[in-house]
Amino acid sequence: MKITIVGAGNVAWHLSQALEDAGHSIQEVYSRNIKNAQKLCSKLYDAFPSPDLDFSESKAEVFFIAVPDDAIDSIATNLQVPDGAIVAHTSGTKPLESLELVFERTGVFYPLQTFSKSRQIHFDHVPVCIESEDESTDKILTKLAKTITPHVYHFDSEKRKVLHLGAVFACNFTNHLLALSKEILEEENIPFNIMHSLISETINKALENDPKEMQTGPAIRRDVKTIQSHLRHLDEQPEKKQLYKLISESILKMGKE
Amino acid sequence: MKITIVGAGNVAWHLSQALEDAGHSIQEVYSRNIKNAQKLCSKLYDAFPSPDLDFSESKAEVFFIAVPDDAIDSIATNLQVPDGAIVAHTSGTKPLESLELVFERTGVFYPLQTFSKSRQIHFDHVPVCIESEDESTDKILTKLAKTITPHVYHFDSEKRKVLHLGAVFACNFTNHLLALSKEILEEENIPFNIMHSLISETINKALENDPKEMQTGPAIRRDVKTIQSHLRHLDEQPEKKQLYKLISESILKMGKE
Repeated sequence: MKITIVGAGNVAWHLSQALEDAGHSIQEVYSRNIKNAQKLCSKLYDAFPSPDLDFSESKAEVFFIAVPDDAIDSIATNLQVPDGAIVAHTSGTKPLESLELVFERTGVFYPLQTFSKSRQIHFDHVPVCIESEDESTDKILTKLAKTITPHVYHFDSEKRKVLHLGAVFACNFTNHLLALSKEILEEENIPFNIMHSLISETINKALENDPKEMQTGPAIRRDVKTIQSHLRHLDEQPEKKQLYKLISESILKMGKE
Repeated sequence: MKITIVGAGNVAWHLSQALEDAGHSIQEVYSRNIKNAQKLCSKLYDAFPSPDLDFSESKAEVFFIAVPDDAIDSIATNLQVPDGAIVAHTSGTKPLESLELVFERTGVFYPLQTFSKSRQIHFDHVPVCIESEDESTDKILTKLAKTITPHVYHFDSEKRKVLHLGAVFACNFTNHLLALSKEILEEENIPFNIMHSLISETINKALENDPKEMQTGPAIRRDVKTIQSHLRHLDEQPEKKQLYKLISESILKMGKE
């Protein structure tokens, strides 16, 4: 298919390359900063950086809006596409409605992954969540998604929001706990990499089983002595102390069920 | 070396096999339930299950106490070892003192890993933390540790406590967040495995870089609209809601520094 990408950030970068690898043709790339569009185009076979959002003469059949959530509305207001073209955003949180008010054929094409330009992603492991109110659009987006990954799901905006909330707990929050752990160790000059093997094994265990069943540590075994000793160590770090208490209580409560 | 293992749980299981694989000889295994000792001995080359803790006639030079933390004191009180034998526990939290009061040569030999009988562990990736007040004991334990892993550290009891606290944040707490995420998804009949690739990539990214620098999500980008929408979704789950708030605040605070 012929595709145009609005955005030149991490998602745009990986998605456009995955689409090209699957045999599709990226027509144009737009970015607020045209230099970023040029940079991405230089990686692609025959894409052109576009100076503006007027694509009424474009040959693209699908337009992906892959920009930060809070920029989607303003992009949607200014974007002009040929008759019959599909416009889909790639956001986990933004409802489909935000596009439906502006374009004829709309959808969501949300790849559930954390992207960085410097890290290679095997797109065939990435779930893509599709949403569209229009059956033929849904079919086209689904078919397109299946050319880059076997993991294609259909979620409405409400379900996608819950998925995103789950990802905040499982990814954003876990990452922050790793950051807090690193701070705790570094105060005692213990290098964080001592923890790597343990963290990897913990996560693998949780993913291959039910994390609830895999819970270990002082909270689940009601080891009050250890908990108290940990809390004393955190006396001068009230924020970490409060988190320690709250998560420990939550572990205990889930264990009781 | 000739080694005896007190305990037949997960740590005892993996440690004894790693020691045997490195060419050491496990002499005896003791467990409160002798059936567990028999089961472990059946996996080992020439170890015998011991019915009691009287090892005064044993040929073992090192005795590992690999039992739950709250059982160490009672084991230490009843354990009898030959003159000159080293007694070391494998706990992350228990101070060395608890052994020093009872035995002549004591140490700590703490493998920083989460062990399950059903999961294979490559011991050469596992850090082992050594502690001893006695130089010759320290040397022997260090040499022994180096036969099973290149990652050998020396930490005193206070530092080992901090290491354990860091592990609670990085492992026990992250595991619980995965369990909460699974609950959130399953309420909407979304299978948790949709999240696997995202979680793995998040963790790999955090471990290969600085997790603080890798933080993403609504909190770090101050996306109040998304945060409010997530909190509304959690209105009837006050526990998850409170955790969401507290961790988000903590992310925001760390990001500001």
